[in-house]
Amino acid sequence: MNKTPLEKRTAAFRDYVKRMMSYSQALAILNWDLRTKAPRKGVDARSELIGVMSGEHFRLLTSPELAEHLAALQEAGTWEQLDAITRGTVQECQKELARFQKIPADRYQKFVTLAAKSGAVWEEARAANDFASFRPYLEEVVKFQLEFIEYWGYQDNKYDTLLDIYEPGMTVAQLDPLFRQLREKTVSLVNAIAAAPYKPDTRFLGKHYPEAAQEAFSRFVLEKIGYDFQAGRLDRSVHPFCTSFAPGDVRITTRFNPDHLNEALFGCIHEAGHAIYEQNINPELFGTPLCDGASMGIHESQSRFWENMVGRSLPFWQHFFAEAVRRFPDQLAGVSVKQFYHAVNEVTPSLIRIEADEVTYNLHIMIRYEIEKGLIEQTIEVGELPTIWNQKMKEYLGVVPSTDSEGVLQDVHWSDGSFGYFPTYSLGNMYAAQIAAVMKKQISGYEQLIARGEFAPIREWLHQNIHQYGKLKSPSQLLHDITGEAPNADYLVEYLESKYKAIYQL
Amino acid sequence: MNKTPLEKRTAAFRDYVKRMMSYSQALAILNWDLRTKAPRKGVDARSELIGVMSGEHFRLLTSPELAEHLAALQEAGTWEQLDAITRGTVQECQKELARFQKIPADRYQKFVTLAAKSGAVWEEARAANDFASFRPYLEEVVKFQLEFIEYWGYQDNKYDTLLDIYEPGMTVAQLDPLFRQLREKTVSLVNAIAAAPYKPDTRFLGKHYPEAAQEAFSRFVLEKIGYDFQAGRLDRSVHPFCTSFAPGDVRITTRFNPDHLNEALFGCIHEAGHAIYEQNINPELFGTPLCDGASMGIHESQSRFWENMVGRSLPFWQHFFAEAVRRFPDQLAGVSVKQFYHAVNEVTPSLIRIEADEVTYNLHIMIRYEIEKGLIEQTIEVGELPTIWNQKMKEYLGVVPSTDSEGVLQDVHWSDGSFGYFPTYSLGNMYAAQIAAVMKKQISGYEQLIARGEFAPIREWLHQNIHQYGKLKSPSQLLHDITGEAPNADYLVEYLESKYKAIYQL
Repeated sequence: MNKTPLEKRTAAFRDYVKRMMSYSQALAILNWDLRTKAPRKGVDARSELIGVMSGEHFRLLTSPELAEHLAALQEAGTWEQLDAITRGTVQECQKELARFQKIPADRYQKFVTLAAKSGAVWEEARAANDFASFRPYLEEVVKFQLEFIEYWGYQDNKYDTLLDIYEPGMTVAQLDPLFRQLREKTVSLVNAIAAAPYKPDTRFLGKHYPEAAQEAFSRFVLEKIGYDFQAGRLDRSVHPFCTSFAPGDVRITTRFNPDHLNEALFGCIHEAGHAIYEQNINPELFGTPLCDGASMGIHESQSRFWENMVGRSLPFWQHFFAEAVRRFPDQLAGVSVKQFYHAVNEVTPSLIRIEADEVTYNLHIMIRYEIEKGLIEQTIEVGELPTIWNQKMKEYLGVVPSTDSEGVLQDVHWSDGSFGYFPTYSLGNMYAAQIAAVMKKQISGYEQLIARGEFAPIREWLHQNIHQYGKLKSPSQLLHDITGEAPNADYLVEYLESKYKAIYQL
Repeated sequence: MNKTPLEKRTAAFRDYVKRMMSYSQALAILNWDLRTKAPRKGVDARSELIGVMSGEHFRLLTSPELAEHLAALQEAGTWEQLDAITRGTVQECQKELARFQKIPADRYQKFVTLAAKSGAVWEEARAANDFASFRPYLEEVVKFQLEFIEYWGYQDNKYDTLLDIYEPGMTVAQLDPLFRQLREKTVSLVNAIAAAPYKPDTRFLGKHYPEAAQEAFSRFVLEKIGYDFQAGRLDRSVHPFCTSFAPGDVRITTRFNPDHLNEALFGCIHEAGHAIYEQNINPELFGTPLCDGASMGIHESQSRFWENMVGRSLPFWQHFFAEAVRRFPDQLAGVSVKQFYHAVNEVTPSLIRIEADEVTYNLHIMIRYEIEKGLIEQTIEVGELPTIWNQKMKEYLGVVPSTDSEGVLQDVHWSDGSFGYFPTYSLGNMYAAQIAAVMKKQISGYEQLIARGEFAPIREWLHQNIHQYGKLKSPSQLLHDITGEAPNADYLVEYLESKYKAIYQL
């Protein structure tokens, strides 16, 4: 059978994209190896190699060949005939291409150089608690973002253009009321918890937990919840992450703190939440940009769901606590499952975002969101950041860092201009609660299943409703298809209030 | 300062080659990961990715851009002005390019497909002891080699063209007398050993040696001899190998047999011999095809030197035996260093090449060399191989396999047409002995140094005389610069006779 011109065109386009995606896969592998396995003296050559391969990927993305495919496939009469995967692939390629093409090459190059330098300066500034040295770089980075936004264009709010990179379709107009509600309710809850006479005893979590035993227990839990070790690995790295090379090879990393049980255990469950998503994307999407999460927020909803809503739930520990005691009999001697459940859910306002508990975490995000918006709307200047940071910490969390290193300098994200990324963390928490509310109605005996260690029905539900689609659906469409609603902060507020009022006996 | 046209041309060429070599590096990393770390379900995607990246590398190698650079740089008047690295790079690129360009694309494609299929058929045939099913594929593979030799051209002997791929400049005319001498002397030595009344007691090597303790001891030895773990790693794989991504990242693998001490220990030293070579190539050669061993034979000379001439020497164990006893007190109870030295040098004719001792190993190579030559000279037919194999085993080693799986089917190399590769193993042994003879004269107290565990002078000598040059010198030039001679089998014969006559009290 002869192929029609459209079939030939589609096949040629899909082959081209597959080739282009091969570079993304290769880069993911080179990065994973760099962060988990590469010897010290191999780092320079590897960084250079990653640079070259990124350049090759960029050449394919910006080639006339791809532009020609995209133009032809988007012509009226053709576009309507495309299958869903090809159509989504065209859209994703067009979007990524536009992000680069709208910026003059020399400006982009200048920014890349600045971002690299700025990252190095930030690292030193944080170590030396020296915001002043970082300030001029951050100012330049913000200026570039403002310049880029002009190239990219915007409608209501400049910040929307940045948000859209990480959370397609999300806007300040949507986020502001959601985050205001979440912030106000959370501040009240945190205050109530602070005033509560009951405090969980957490001392047993800080005993000595040997690394090898922690790793074995983490693997045990991950196997049980359904992270597929035949399609993945668990390794160590300085900063934990999840990376997907293909649905059959999605790897996670962790780090072990021998003097605290929580970090690796819940870190592993968190990364496995990301990984279970990627492992369960429809394999037909492999080789296209659709073989990915719907957005950063949806991705985070999966990691937070498993880490907090499942992994820090009472039924979860009704199942796993006996095993924990078996493995750590001395450390957990005399501890009840309820005490353990309370301890892993301790709420304490603290300075560092990545160490924050489930309740206060969102307040850390609010501070960053408000500052980012101010920088982009030009109502806040970089020089004011330390002061504003500390004011907001005081207002929302009631604690103030004594150094900028523990304050405004703590995160890497701003140094390379990743504005718009932080909000997806709290969006993830909101999505997770909103989705879980539906799931609990649709899966009968949801809590009993968890208490019996039966996670397959939950995974299957997530697969059917979320995972399989990869990036075929936009985050808002995905959420609407599941919940019938737009993003809604009520579910997260309700989840946090009911869980923590019970724990803190409010 | 403005660059001259030649400087510009040279810089553009070197940049192009560096980009091309980036694919070799990336492929090496993808392969290492596949063989040491990749989960089962990731294998298909990885194999496909390796295919795509190989294709990208091939496109760069065969592009008009490279051909134009090569032509311009080889013009009279230009060529003479090139620096040594650029000149060598041109030569290597030209050679590799010629290998592909002389073969019609459709024929090469057909061969690649055949080779892949043939490899799979070989694997099944070996498992099922079924030479007949492999025979038609091997016949096709040989036909293709003969066809390719016509495209590539040859002078005296068709087999020279294949030898040149692995051992540049080596010919049948040179090899035949070298190998005849080595074979005759080795057969005599093996016969004398077989008739000797004294047999080393090797039973203690076959006790239980826990894997973790073996690994720790191997790492201890590797550190001591100077494999740089800050520029490498030791991992596990089904088949041990060494792979270099850059001089700062040269990794080795091993496998552990908990019921025998030798396999991992000497395997590690062997791979470290390869790795120490690659770690010590002049970093200026990185990013060119010259950042590699001079040839397969020279590379093997380094692994064999460390494994056998150092690692299986009496001074070596005078240094390390106490440590071995400390780590394996029960297994080595009552064993003397001399008994240990004798045991790790046991000579026994056996069926499987990769398990052969230092003396009989070369006889396994002779059989393969003679058969390969016969196939290419068309004096042997594929159908005769099982018979000829067994005849030669009987004649040289005095043992005959009871199945083809343990005989002619044991090695993978022929299934994809890698004829000309096997001889480099014995060449490596010859080079090693010839080079060591000079080294011992130039390094005063050579054996005492080893007995004290001081390996730096040996490494430094190898660095100065061999390692630093990478592929800048041809194997014959390298050997001549060190020894003042062409390849000479006398040194290996003399080394084997003196070592083994002493051990076996002949």
